[in-house]
Amino acid sequence: MSDFNAAGRHILGIDIGGTKLAVVAADRGGNVLHKVRRATEAARGPRVIVDTLCDMAREAMTMAATDPNDIAGIGVSCGGPLDTATGMVYSPPNLPGWDGIPLKAWLEEGLGIATCIENDANASALAEWLYGAGRGYRNVVYMTMSTGIGGGLILDGRLYRGTGDAAGEVGHMTILPGGPRCGCGKNGCLEALCSGPAIARRAREALGHDAASRMLELTGGNMEAVTAETVMEAARQGDASALRLVDETAYYMAIGLGNIVNVLNPEIIIIGTIIVKAGDLLLDPIHRYLRQETWDRVYRMVRIAPAELGNAVGDLAAIAVVEEMLKG
Amino acid sequence: MSDFNAAGRHILGIDIGGTKLAVVAADRGGNVLHKVRRATEAARGPRVIVDTLCDMAREAMTMAATDPNDIAGIGVSCGGPLDTATGMVYSPPNLPGWDGIPLKAWLEEGLGIATCIENDANASALAEWLYGAGRGYRNVVYMTMSTGIGGGLILDGRLYRGTGDAAGEVGHMTILPGGPRCGCGKNGCLEALCSGPAIARRAREALGHDAASRMLELTGGNMEAVTAETVMEAARQGDASALRLVDETAYYMAIGLGNIVNVLNPEIIIIGTIIVKAGDLLLDPIHRYLRQETWDRVYRMVRIAPAELGNAVGDLAAIAVVEEMLKG
Repeated sequence: MSDFNAAGRHILGIDIGGTKLAVVAADRGGNVLHKVRRATEAARGPRVIVDTLCDMAREAMTMAATDPNDIAGIGVSCGGPLDTATGMVYSPPNLPGWDGIPLKAWLEEGLGIATCIENDANASALAEWLYGAGRGYRNVVYMTMSTGIGGGLILDGRLYRGTGDAAGEVGHMTILPGGPRCGCGKNGCLEALCSGPAIARRAREALGHDAASRMLELTGGNMEAVTAETVMEAARQGDASALRLVDETAYYMAIGLGNIVNVLNPEIIIIGTIIVKAGDLLLDPIHRYLRQETWDRVYRMVRIAPAELGNAVGDLAAIAVVEEMLKG
Repeated sequence: MSDFNAAGRHILGIDIGGTKLAVVAADRGGNVLHKVRRATEAARGPRVIVDTLCDMAREAMTMAATDPNDIAGIGVSCGGPLDTATGMVYSPPNLPGWDGIPLKAWLEEGLGIATCIENDANASALAEWLYGAGRGYRNVVYMTMSTGIGGGLILDGRLYRGTGDAAGEVGHMTILPGGPRCGCGKNGCLEALCSGPAIARRAREALGHDAASRMLELTGGNMEAVTAETVMEAARQGDASALRLVDETAYYMAIGLGNIVNVLNPEIIIIGTIIVKAGDLLLDPIHRYLRQETWDRVYRMVRIAPAELGNAVGDLAAIAVVEEMLKG
């Protein structure tokens, strides 16, 4: 096994998604020097993908005019579940067939550079903390809010991974007992109420009672084409049904955020994607409900902020994993 | 300010409750050598109480044949809110008039021994971790379950206090939106459903529909005398209404525990008082519901265990605060 090289001036970051792969070479300030992209040919199996990643890494080093001796380490952001200690990946939903893959070992063999792997939510939390909205804070909760709702926790200035790298599953807090079925098999999870698909589903239910809604106009009358973005746009245009959906979404989010605030007393909760796009349209009612859900004392301690890194989060996530590792 | 003395063979622990004060001298293994008790004369004001505590501390040292040079430090377990960094106490509900009291400074002035203060839930979490059911674990959630529901978090082998010493308020997660009013002003908190008074309140509501319940027999027909213990006893005797209340309590608890498991992925959740007394009567259905509320993978990682320290927790809590402090 190779050792991490704290003096290395560069870091390689590998972002493994279900549809695309990215490898970046970056400096220690989080600036991407070169980026290589390929499609994830998942059907060809993990071994082929890892070989592809090694090729991409060599290309990124060449283009960034660096070499393995100047690389502090390789960070990988990947869907979980995975084991950060052993570097094994176990059946991420977006990578069929990757069950029990020694990802860290294969990359280290292929490139001869110390590698650490992290689940994508934790890696993104590290990125927003080091380079984004969480800079300078000590207790940071990061939440994705898109197709699903996931999260990562920075507590007392360190990534908190939990016992089996499974902490931060904020999307599966139960918000509404007996509520809508979640992909995880439970009912009433935050994700089943406030993810993009969940907001769209609730919108379609509402449209059953309001065929005149602006939401339908926006999709040319196609109910199936209504998305969370349609809801936000119609709400901005004053549509009553959409405004009700936004308010309800804010209420459910505030219950989830309130639980987090009561249990973790963070300084900042950073929320991605939907909150970034919706902005104050969602943040204002979230604050209003959150004030009801928390003591005044802890409410005043916490900021709710949109994520700052946008599409750059994947690259920086992989880089940030190495920076966290180098802290030892 | 005095310094903590890691080589000291003894620790003084001060437990400040709303009705009684206790000061213990203990060795570094958590064995209490001598204990001094007095009533909390809250009406005489904080200065008098601190003077009393100093007298009690001197008495404890004399009786334990130790002296300030051999004391590693003084730990205080006290109701919050408080600030562990400054050692100030801010209006704990059980100590009227203690608003902005420099408790740490006053004790250090009075005794010349380095002192650290901690809220009682966190201090109890430390005690169960160091001396009780949490020994040897790295990620421990401790929950009180008596008059209220509070908690403390040991994460990655350290007490996690949160941004303003306010983490661990697990009793104020919302379990049932729009549910019964909680003492905190919110609705549907775990505490408003599963604390001792909440269980008793739900029992009285159930008795309105079941005047023949064993619960009423146990209290001689006095509905106001029904407590959580009455419910547990009647359930053990097979009373249908009581069994329903136990099942419902387990369901609400499992939602709260499920949230904790999903967010924190702990190895063990230690629950005090009501769980200790009820044992498997509550733990069995809690496990059944918790399995529904969590992924199999994280469910298998977590133990739900009754607290082990019983009435000794207060003394050991104060001691444990110093042991945690000495880790630096």
